[in-house]
Amino acid sequence: MSALIASLDTPVALIDVSRMQRNIQRMQQRMHSLGVRLRPHIKTSKCLPVIKAQIAAGANGVTVSTLKEAEYCFAEGINDVFYAVAVAPGKLAQALALRRQGCNLSVLTDSVVGAQAIVAFAQQHDERFNVWIEIDCDGHRSGLAVEDPALLAVARVLVEGGQQLRGVMTHAGSSYELDTLPALQALAEQERQLCVSAAEKIRQAGMACPEVSIGSTPTALSALNLEGVTEVRAGVYVFFDLVMHNIGVCQADELALSVLTTVIGHQQDKGWIITDAGWMAMSRDRGTQRQRQDFGYGQVCTETGDWIDGARVTGANQEHGIITLGAAQGTDIVTRFPIGSRLRILPNHACATGAQFPHYHACDAEGAVHTWSRLHGW
Amino acid sequence: MSALIASLDTPVALIDVSRMQRNIQRMQQRMHSLGVRLRPHIKTSKCLPVIKAQIAAGANGVTVSTLKEAEYCFAEGINDVFYAVAVAPGKLAQALALRRQGCNLSVLTDSVVGAQAIVAFAQQHDERFNVWIEIDCDGHRSGLAVEDPALLAVARVLVEGGQQLRGVMTHAGSSYELDTLPALQALAEQERQLCVSAAEKIRQAGMACPEVSIGSTPTALSALNLEGVTEVRAGVYVFFDLVMHNIGVCQADELALSVLTTVIGHQQDKGWIITDAGWMAMSRDRGTQRQRQDFGYGQVCTETGDWIDGARVTGANQEHGIITLGAAQGTDIVTRFPIGSRLRILPNHACATGAQFPHYHACDAEGAVHTWSRLHGW
Repeated sequence: MSALIASLDTPVALIDVSRMQRNIQRMQQRMHSLGVRLRPHIKTSKCLPVIKAQIAAGANGVTVSTLKEAEYCFAEGINDVFYAVAVAPGKLAQALALRRQGCNLSVLTDSVVGAQAIVAFAQQHDERFNVWIEIDCDGHRSGLAVEDPALLAVARVLVEGGQQLRGVMTHAGSSYELDTLPALQALAEQERQLCVSAAEKIRQAGMACPEVSIGSTPTALSALNLEGVTEVRAGVYVFFDLVMHNIGVCQADELALSVLTTVIGHQQDKGWIITDAGWMAMSRDRGTQRQRQDFGYGQVCTETGDWIDGARVTGANQEHGIITLGAAQGTDIVTRFPIGSRLRILPNHACATGAQFPHYHACDAEGAVHTWSRLHGW
Repeated sequence: MSALIASLDTPVALIDVSRMQRNIQRMQQRMHSLGVRLRPHIKTSKCLPVIKAQIAAGANGVTVSTLKEAEYCFAEGINDVFYAVAVAPGKLAQALALRRQGCNLSVLTDSVVGAQAIVAFAQQHDERFNVWIEIDCDGHRSGLAVEDPALLAVARVLVEGGQQLRGVMTHAGSSYELDTLPALQALAEQERQLCVSAAEKIRQAGMACPEVSIGSTPTALSALNLEGVTEVRAGVYVFFDLVMHNIGVCQADELALSVLTTVIGHQQDKGWIITDAGWMAMSRDRGTQRQRQDFGYGQVCTETGDWIDGARVTGANQEHGIITLGAAQGTDIVTRFPIGSRLRILPNHACATGAQFPHYHACDAEGAVHTWSRLHGW
């Protein structure tokens, strides 16, 4: 292991750059072979070197979850930005400012009221926004059902109001609840089919709807056919995590984000190893709680990244992690994991764990460690 | 409501300064009447104006959960700093640097190995650290049991190694699992009694043990007698939150931290109001999940802070919150909470929610709004 990693103060968030690059290649090649563009969701990393690696591999534009991410990308020369959360009317001024600076920003709505607010603001400022309409493909969160009469009403408000209707988009967020390939393939097909149907409905009503954007990491990695789709959005594939591992879309050696921690104590009677990676480092995300394997607050690995089977972070306070070993690991915790020794923890959810850190430490194949800053807040 | 609040972009973390000041006074006066000093745990706010208000009200020194917090406080003239997490040997150089700059930093250990590491490092650098020994009073996390022979062994390693044994400390973290006054009073007495016993055991062995430091917000607000205790540490009382409300140590009108959010959509069939405060704003903390009332990801209030009974954030994605109303609230969500309208969400856990934001917006009684930055990371 790199001497540089051994010298880092803990807790730190490590990126295995080789794994990250393989993850980027895997998704990009899959999208290429399915004949669609990839617009990565950068809410996972919020980190420019990661985003640049995605674009260098062939991504077309980015998806963002906040306008701060949009500003961050545009400041670095990334022009095609899709803000994929229904835009609050109060955020239109910030969106307009980005467009006036030359950013090809597009926004999202899923309601007549939202569309009217966009039109009113645009007309007041003599602007023509790029707008997507959100479709609900699985009852997971936001969006209009294909059969909802509001779908055409929203499209008409936008088109008649002089806006550029760029297309329809959906996100099969319920894919996080699945863990078999047939179920994932079926949901991917449902996501594709419903979003394409929405576009066709708008086209049949005489309006242009050039784009069909779908995506989630599990469905993107499971779809067999993306006919009618123009682009896919996915985010967490860049690092993967234990939730994705439980869903079945990645292998253990594809998890690119981990938290390096130091052992600070033991409670030998209870079999507890106490570390300096509590929930402030891991986040409070318990995404594996209802999956096939509950990893607590994370899977414990050696300092060099080898899984210690059954060892998990079973408790977390703000700056204390509590690790317990599986039954197969024996009870000799004090000499095997002495105070001052180090471990790596794989997180449940890379988006949530990354957000706890102001920067990542990116470790490349040559053993060099680079400090990569990331966004925080709005 | 202040026009300034209405102009803020969402999501933002609001501090009600009047409530915060009352909370600070309440705890300070209670400690004064019990005859002990208060050393607030600043991990809750990590925010200088909050810490200064605590010190102005009479607090003696601060407790920190990271050395970055120690550096932050010391840079602002706060000299008496207790780093209350067992110090990793690798962090002693950073602790030494603070002491060499004049910071009266004290560190913590709960093991012979940890104490030996402190002594070895100190002797190598000709330093005399202030050291506390951690006592386990409730099986919650770290610390030595009073009856553990290691207690005296740790004290001897420190004293014979030339370090300043400042005292014993404990934290009754299991108080978060209680919700009746008799149970809290009993745990507070257990916390006091065991920590005082540990000090007496060290004194009976012929070593000085001047200080006895205990604390958690629930026990600090429940203790009837703190005989033998010299100081209390508590943190979350400064803001309070829904977890504390469920425990029963604060009233609804004492919760000083909330997240202001904007309605961005609805799913009327499901009764869902969609907002721009997802888990990135609220945190993933579900601390009320196993308490007497499960508030989901937060209690929903009007923009001015009035509770909407039964309305909770029942789902959270990264930048989407899903609010459902209680049965008593009816189904007219679209006109009652239109797109663009605003709500305030009270968090489960103020320490976790605050950490999601680079700064707070502090609203004083005159309607002014101040931007208070806070620490992020290590």
